[in-house]
Amino acid sequence: MTKNKPLILITNDDGISAPGIRALIDVMSQIGEVVVVAPDKPQSAMGHAITINNTLYLNKISKESDPVLEYSCSGTPVDCVKLAVNEILKRKPDLCVSGINHGSNSSINVIYSGTMSAAVEAGIEGIPAIGFSLLDYDWNADFDSIKSFVKKITTEVLEKGLPKDVVLNVNFPKLKQDEIKGIKICRQAKALWVEKFDKRQTPQGRDYYWLAGEFVNKDKGEDTDEWALENGYISVVPVQFDLTAHHATQELNSWNWNE
Amino acid sequence: MTKNKPLILITNDDGISAPGIRALIDVMSQIGEVVVVAPDKPQSAMGHAITINNTLYLNKISKESDPVLEYSCSGTPVDCVKLAVNEILKRKPDLCVSGINHGSNSSINVIYSGTMSAAVEAGIEGIPAIGFSLLDYDWNADFDSIKSFVKKITTEVLEKGLPKDVVLNVNFPKLKQDEIKGIKICRQAKALWVEKFDKRQTPQGRDYYWLAGEFVNKDKGEDTDEWALENGYISVVPVQFDLTAHHATQELNSWNWNE
Repeated sequence: MTKNKPLILITNDDGISAPGIRALIDVMSQIGEVVVVAPDKPQSAMGHAITINNTLYLNKISKESDPVLEYSCSGTPVDCVKLAVNEILKRKPDLCVSGINHGSNSSINVIYSGTMSAAVEAGIEGIPAIGFSLLDYDWNADFDSIKSFVKKITTEVLEKGLPKDVVLNVNFPKLKQDEIKGIKICRQAKALWVEKFDKRQTPQGRDYYWLAGEFVNKDKGEDTDEWALENGYISVVPVQFDLTAHHATQELNSWNWNE
Repeated sequence: MTKNKPLILITNDDGISAPGIRALIDVMSQIGEVVVVAPDKPQSAMGHAITINNTLYLNKISKESDPVLEYSCSGTPVDCVKLAVNEILKRKPDLCVSGINHGSNSSINVIYSGTMSAAVEAGIEGIPAIGFSLLDYDWNADFDSIKSFVKKITTEVLEKGLPKDVVLNVNFPKLKQDEIKGIKICRQAKALWVEKFDKRQTPQGRDYYWLAGEFVNKDKGEDTDEWALENGYISVVPVQFDLTAHHATQELNSWNWNE
């Protein structure tokens, strides 16, 4: 490997054996020096959880002769990024990519997603980061169709550099390569999950629940990620981790806080 | 209870038996009709995690004669809000309050915090919400000193209504009541945790890690939550869940995405 190759950290939330991360490793190996640190089991919907009340284990699972260094980790996606940066990588990586997620992380899903939280964690640590997701939950989803786009987006980010304190949330429609219309910069659609818990009983008669829900998008804006995906485009949403609602400051300051 | 009393949902991430939530129940019982749905064990740093690969249990732990209805839940803080709204409460609550957290959720901690994620989840569901945290990790922290401020802030929110799609992140300095200088509307300080993993060995000789770190704030702005707290004020940060970095859209649109 030449010294000029970028150092790329890869993680995900579906676990290190998921086909989605394998596709991402394929593409990134064409671009840079790759190190993989990913959960040893599925960690979907873990959000920005970190492990503070339990121990963390790392297992080196690549052989010395393998071209890519791979570690599985007992923690969450965010733990993986923290351990990679502090315990495995010899220098700060040039890029962190997370995914390719099996299923959508568009709209409000960005908040629940372990895939995106790993990218956000890298962003917080000053590492350019992209989360990739395909709108197909199938374990055998067709990742080949989107590999050229993943490569294009990654190359563009490495060349131009991301705006400060911004990471990218990239979602792909479930389409064949030649059906995809292009890439659109979007805003996060204002949508939510409306829950319908599935209430069941254990064999012993105790009630329990399964979280189930329906995704409801009432945001009809044509500048949203949902619109782009429904219309055959790849959505790219710039995501920030300053959660301050700056627009609300003035109104709140007009209240009688200190009387 | 009169029909005019607001319906208030209370949750937290330290667990239903934590003194912090007990203090919050005390205060809210003076204001409205209170229902508590909180984790049955500590769920700190769980971020916006939800339980999708496991079952969820609810336990009614209050007696019929108790003034406050209380349920413990086997899931995360966000699960608690979803279960409360969909399975327990007869109508959408007028307010959701989360905490009082044992320890800070100022600055970047808002992203890792289960307390704040519960408030954000309520916000997503259209419920006015406030997360309260005290900068004291001690189980026996002095919550009495801040009760009057918790009541003041809650009353103000119920009276005025929060700006749309905004929840409040309220942090209290570790000070006696008469030492607190007042309430300040702030922005989230740009700070981060710099990790220092503590590497140890199991009795069998296997390496493992404890996540440990140091909070580093290089943001010297006097409009930040960190500044307010260091200077004896209660910090109130309006928090949004549209993570779109709208300011970055123009720059990203200038890239060669579709060539």
